[in-house]
Amino acid sequence: MRIIIDMDDVLADASSKILSIFNQINDTNIEPSFFDDKSFYDYVNSPKFKPFINYIYEPGFFSDLKVFPNAQDVVKELSEKHEVYIVSAATEFPNSLKEKYDWMKTHFPFISWRNFVLCGDKSIVSGDIMIDDHEKNLKNFNGEKILFDAQHNKLVKGYLRLNNWIEIHNYFF
Amino acid sequence: MRIIIDMDDVLADASSKILSIFNQINDTNIEPSFFDDKSFYDYVNSPKFKPFINYIYEPGFFSDLKVFPNAQDVVKELSEKHEVYIVSAATEFPNSLKEKYDWMKTHFPFISWRNFVLCGDKSIVSGDIMIDDHEKNLKNFNGEKILFDAQHNKLVKGYLRLNNWIEIHNYFF
Repeated sequence: MRIIIDMDDVLADASSKILSIFNQINDTNIEPSFFDDKSFYDYVNSPKFKPFINYIYEPGFFSDLKVFPNAQDVVKELSEKHEVYIVSAATEFPNSLKEKYDWMKTHFPFISWRNFVLCGDKSIVSGDIMIDDHEKNLKNFNGEKILFDAQHNKLVKGYLRLNNWIEIHNYFF
Repeated sequence: MRIIIDMDDVLADASSKILSIFNQINDTNIEPSFFDDKSFYDYVNSPKFKPFINYIYEPGFFSDLKVFPNAQDVVKELSEKHEVYIVSAATEFPNSLKEKYDWMKTHFPFISWRNFVLCGDKSIVSGDIMIDDHEKNLKNFNGEKILFDAQHNKLVKGYLRLNNWIEIHNYFF
């Protein structure tokens, strides 16, 4: 079975860093739970706030993202039984390419370069299961779809939602 | 129709640079046509020669590759009528990631980041037609396969072989 796993907000906690940058530049103190019942992007991209998006294009943004708890152990276990590919939408952010490669090599050294994909539109990849935090990636996928819970996707409906890597472990084993 | 086009030795002339490096470090003067009836890799990787492979991992190797004649015009024409993805096996060479992105942006600016894939094993991508110079990439592909002629694949049989971008143009139009 081929399992396609996303990187940002599935393995790497990009959301916390984005919210922290947003709070800093806007002098706000919004907690992640604030977005439990509203659209993250609609809210933070409203004209009353300074935009955070440019910070994502800066060198170094992706280098120090934290790994989600248990992600390493569960991905290792999955990769021992299945064909695991890490597929990241990265070509929008050219500086991220090498940073993402280095991040994977540091935190997931057991994933071969053969199984690592940096792309734009994910409709190009095929597999049996996709784990992703973005509906735009899941909706065109031809296999089973798992929505990984994130602060920006709380309002997305219609997918199996798993909240953390323990739940992913329990789903597969 | 989705057309998947390889980069090295299909859009970018990596072979000429590799042979030039090989000749330089081994003090030989081998012409490309020398490999018309023998296996490039078997020959140049024989123990009697100094290996060229480390040079491919060096920063800058992929930056100044020449574009094959007519590749730009034909890819542009194809991309206006079809869904064109450029898919490059790049994660084996981490330094190549940004270099390949920059090279594409310079020589094929009409290809969006959305349609650019840097990967390892190409069996992850799906599409209708793949144009590639490596049998290992073509053999697992589920669509139509076109072998792009290269100095290292002269002995490969069993594929439709097209020799240049004029032939590719004539195949599609």
